[in-house]
Amino acid sequence: MRLAVYPGSFDPITKGHIDILERSSRLFDRIVVAVIHNVNKKELFTLEERKEMIREATQHLPNVEVDCFSGLLVDYIVQKGACAIVRGLRTVSDFEYELHMAMMNHHMLPEVDTIFIMSTSKYFYISSSMVKEAALLGGPVGDLVPPNVEARLREKWRQRKEGKGVSD
Amino acid sequence: MRLAVYPGSFDPITKGHIDILERSSRLFDRIVVAVIHNVNKKELFTLEERKEMIREATQHLPNVEVDCFSGLLVDYIVQKGACAIVRGLRTVSDFEYELHMAMMNHHMLPEVDTIFIMSTSKYFYISSSMVKEAALLGGPVGDLVPPNVEARLREKWRQRKEGKGVSD
Amino acid sequence: MRLAVYPGSFDPITKGHIDILERSSRLFDRIVVAVIHNVNKKELFTLEERKEMIREATQHLPNVEVDCFSGLLVDYIVQKGACAIVRGLRTVSDFEYELHMAMMNHHMLPEVDTIFIMSTSKYFYISSSMVKEAALLGGPVGDLVPPNVEARLREKWRQRKEGKGVSD
Amino acid sequence: MRLAVYPGSFDPITKGHIDILERSSRLFDRIVVAVIHNVNKKELFTLEERKEMIREATQHLPNVEVDCFSGLLVDYIVQKGACAIVRGLRTVSDFEYELHMAMMNHHMLPEVDTIFIMSTSKYFYISSSMVKEAALLGGPVGDLVPPNVEARLREKWRQRKEGKGVSD
Amino acid sequence: MRLAVYPGSFDPITKGHIDILERSSRLFDRIVVAVIHNVNKKELFTLEERKEMIREATQHLPNVEVDCFSGLLVDYIVQKGACAIVRGLRTVSDFEYELHMAMMNHHMLPEVDTIFIMSTSKYFYISSSMVKEAALLGGPVGDLVPPNVEARLREKWRQRKEGKGVSD
Amino acid sequence: MRLAVYPGSFDPITKGHIDILERSSRLFDRIVVAVIHNVNKKELFTLEERKEMIREATQHLPNVEVDCFSGLLVDYIVQKGACAIVRGLRTVSDFEYELHMAMMNHHMLPEVDTIFIMSTSKYFYISSSMVKEAALLGGPVGDLVPPNVEARLREKWRQRKEGKGVSD
Repeated sequence: MRLAVYPGSFDPITKGHIDILERSSRLFDRIVVAVIHNVNKKELFTLEERKEMIREATQHLPNVEVDCFSGLLVDYIVQKGACAIVRGLRTVSDFEYELHMAMMNHHMLPEVDTIFIMSTSKYFYISSSMVKEAALLGGPVGDLVPPNVEARLREKWRQRKEGKGVSD
Repeated sequence: MRLAVYPGSFDPITKGHIDILERSSRLFDRIVVAVIHNVNKKELFTLEERKEMIREATQHLPNVEVDCFSGLLVDYIVQKGACAIVRGLRTVSDFEYELHMAMMNHHMLPEVDTIFIMSTSKYFYISSSMVKEAALLGGPVGDLVPPNVEARLREKWRQRKEGKGVSD
Repeated sequence: MRLAVYPGSFDPITKGHIDILERSSRLFDRIVVAVIHNVNKKELFTLEERKEMIREATQHLPNVEVDCFSGLLVDYIVQKGACAIVRGLRTVSDFEYELHMAMMNHHMLPEVDTIFIMSTSKYFYISSSMVKEAALLGGPVGDLVPPNVEARLREKWRQRKEGKGVSD
Repeated sequence: MRLAVYPGSFDPITKGHIDILERSSRLFDRIVVAVIHNVNKKELFTLEERKEMIREATQHLPNVEVDCFSGLLVDYIVQKGACAIVRGLRTVSDFEYELHMAMMNHHMLPEVDTIFIMSTSKYFYISSSMVKEAALLGGPVGDLVPPNVEARLREKWRQRKEGKGVSD
Repeated sequence: MRLAVYPGSFDPITKGHIDILERSSRLFDRIVVAVIHNVNKKELFTLEERKEMIREATQHLPNVEVDCFSGLLVDYIVQKGACAIVRGLRTVSDFEYELHMAMMNHHMLPEVDTIFIMSTSKYFYISSSMVKEAALLGGPVGDLVPPNVEARLREKWRQRKEGKGVSD
Repeated sequence: MRLAVYPGSFDPITKGHIDILERSSRLFDRIVVAVIHNVNKKELFTLEERKEMIREATQHLPNVEVDCFSGLLVDYIVQKGACAIVRGLRTVSDFEYELHMAMMNHHMLPEVDTIFIMSTSKYFYISSSMVKEAALLGGPVGDLVPPNVEARLREKWRQRKEGKGVSD
């Protein structure tokens, strides 16, 4: 059985991520979406919210499961018995960062490989940070994220607007 | 059974290609190295020579086999029943060309995915064209290609030198 | 009245080019599509064929006309009385070439500016050369080029196949 | 009448920005320089200071006016009745960010287009952040920003030096 | 006598930096490693610790000395009487930032030049930030930094782990 | 004594090359401009013409001399006793090619280093190929090349025009 890990912040999961998952789930027996738990990074959604949104959005992919980790990715890979790390690639800047990260992980754990899957042209320009920026200003993001994520982003936007209204 | 195709010119195969094959052969049940047969492109080695060099250099990888194709890659993929195309990534320029090619192939055959594996830092700067350029000027390429390829490149270099001597 | 020139080889025109034209035709009073006549470059379609295909494919854009030129682009710009050069941008490699070309043209003719319009994500990966390569191997390109271009590419492909059949 | 919006932080406006404005003001009937009002971003100059510096530095361009906005750019575009967003392009990293931003804006408002104008080679390396960094360390920036901005940067530098002197 | 300055944060020095120093020390009579003293930037190691680690790791290079500076680099260059700034180059993103910085410095001090030396493929993917990230999560970095730096990173990691243990 | 080699095609030498030479000649005791003699590459100017144009254009640089070589660059470096290869850097595409070439040369001859000097912003967009393209179409290139090269390019352009006139 071949298991791959798809690590990331997923704050929140987008249709671009789901596209990568739909495609990589055909190549491996199991995929674990591994949400990075980084106490120093300020995220919009809590770890639990992020995991829940991924679970809801990947119900149609039976061999995909959701987990989280902190610490070194390679330690997590060993613990899971994974043979590959899956990453999406969208831009030249992504590419260089990912190239160096893959070389670093390969240096620490030569038995595991990073494979890259490129985003389809339709989802090419979507990133979690652009989605958040647009959504928190009231922009339409229904084509960019699954419905459950859209609903939660709209809720966050409402809270912000009301919060501002109260404080003014 | 999951079969992947690793297409390319392989004129000639380098240690960088072999590194990609060693790593991708762990991820799939079978890998077919598919040498592109392009009558318009001027290659140093014939199609047969290129296939033979790959066969010799991948004997330690039992689930790797060598084939060739002409025409559309996606037609070949369908004929082979492959689920993935494997490509190595080294540079930003590679990245953009490969991104567009992967989008084009995905447009023509959505069921197949291109996965990218990055070269290890040790083989990062090796390309078939740089190897040929150096070898045909008498440069040492023993660390960059397998021994069988080195021997054939040296032979080509000797022929060129003698050819020039004769014609002068 | 503001006139812009959209220069290129257009061998053949793609849906990506038409997208650029639809968008730039809203910004200027008139757009001249200026097909480069370069005797040294080997093109698939003749100058006349390329102009005809553009004319057919831009009939819905009343302020777009088709012309051709040889020699320096800036000389043509002066002769036409244009205030801008329009170019599409798709990739980092495009970007650098275009940046230098725009600086060079600006050096020779400071009164004219090059403006760049980025391809929409849907047509992001389409280039004339990839379209030709796919079409001449029998690949489906109906989503990438307008119907009149698709028909002509199919005709070229048929001729090639028959040509080979006869010569074999 | 064709109106374009040139959005940015302009903290502070540089000769590079003014070059873009001089060139784009020839292509449109009116240009609105739209200073982004982002309460979360720490700027060196206040919104009012930034607007004032732009006004002073663009007095020679009669069809250029200065405004500010918060919220979604596309909402502001609709409100202004603009047909285009103008952006300068200097680097590959710029290019990718701008490409994705333009695709995102095009997704939210297909009727508006982003056009890119490349910096002339003379102003190629100037960015607001490099100018600030140099000026606040006492470096000469008279060739990089208009005189009014240079004076204000020198004032900021003097305040910092004195502030340090006092607090020491 | 030709003196060059190699400026940087060196937080901490890596084998990649040492490689650059070994190579550039052959090209100049003296090299000053100039640690940037930036009170606004949060560093892992103090200025003194960083200087000490460099001194220990460059003992085999007799014409290399260690210093620090704050303020404008070009002022420091003038004060030292240096003829060149040495910088390493690893990535496309590095390249653009360095290109603009070199142009800016050349604008302020035309008599001094920046020369770039590329990292060898072996140290290609090493950066101080990746090393710190890995080391503080307990990852092996012995191949990436000199032994004295490895020992100090391990000490930092131990402190963090104990600090967390106590606070939990 | 430190000797550096500045290799290239120089077909023809531009003000960008001369800028690199003026700057690198301050860093080394002697610089040899080494024109590549490649029988397979079609050049506009003969080897002798190219060497002569460089000699004329570098008379103000007493420690610069002109030579040519064929074969492996590293063999030529050894023969000359050089300690460094000098290369100019303009673009991201340059950068990647040069990075790989430097790694390849370092692999074959570890004692020699490639140093890169970036073009000043004024000459940033100039390349021999763009200069030739413009000049052979009658464009003004007096700001881009030294006067002796401009004269020769104008002569080539006249010959071409007359050649066409005769053949028409």
